[in-house]
Amino acid sequence: MNAMKLVTIICEAHARKPITELLREVGARGWTAFPVEGDGAKGPRHADIPETSNLQLQVVVRADVAATLLERLEKEYFPRYGMIAYAADVQVLRQNKF
Amino acid sequence: MNAMKLVTIICEAHARKPITELLREVGARGWTAFPVEGDGAKGPRHADIPETSNLQLQVVVRADVAATLLERLEKEYFPRYGMIAYAADVQVLRQNKF
Amino acid sequence: MNAMKLVTIICEAHARKPITELLREVGARGWTAFPVEGDGAKGPRHADIPETSNLQLQVVVRADVAATLLERLEKEYFPRYGMIAYAADVQVLRQNKF
Repeated sequence: MNAMKLVTIICEAHARKPITELLREVGARGWTAFPVEGDGAKGPRHADIPETSNLQLQVVVRADVAATLLERLEKEYFPRYGMIAYAADVQVLRQNKF
Repeated sequence: MNAMKLVTIICEAHARKPITELLREVGARGWTAFPVEGDGAKGPRHADIPETSNLQLQVVVRADVAATLLERLEKEYFPRYGMIAYAADVQVLRQNKF
Repeated sequence: MNAMKLVTIICEAHARKPITELLREVGARGWTAFPVEGDGAKGPRHADIPETSNLQLQVVVRADVAATLLERLEKEYFPRYGMIAYAADVQVLRQNKF
């Protein structure tokens, strides 16, 4: 078992492409995405209205990659997109997949 | 990076409104929700039958808010709805969003 | 509050039945599942093409059950299916439900 970070990003659906490009840039080897409804500082967003729905992206990466990812999200993406991000500790199998 | 709690609630879909009202009451500033299929103590529930589907709600809050939320869920909601809840440690960016 | 493990399994949709059978075998009392899009070592998978979509399964179990589950996934399932798995610490209410 290897200690890694699970980074969760909840963003506006139109931020998907720039964020997945960033994930590749920082060295993430895979991610998952699924639509979520949400209610936050900017008011409710509904998954059944695709244009305004939110997307939850998740990626498992090494701690140093997570730090770089979060720093770049904060500096470059938070000013441009409605989004939140958080990290959690996870233990993974098959570390070479991440 | 700030230490917060991610609280996950998996409940019957019809519990959505009372639970999101509770989230507001205890001070959560946003949440996400998405349908899940499940199989638990009460038997299988399938996402393709909306009436019986489960909902996964997630909210990131301060540790004290998480404690209040979980205590109220246990006392006031668990007796009335089929649901489970759990908390995990997360590190967040933009703490003012939560 | 009781310390437990949340095990997340992201797999090809056709691995669902064997994996949920394994979950029962190792003693998990419930699970949730939902479709996810993904991009990993084997290339992109899109949730809107059901045949190639991935499934995210999650289960909360005791630490010893998580260890058995992950060991069996690694030995018996990873060689046969495209999948990843990771575990995280969670605190649960109503431990008897898990």
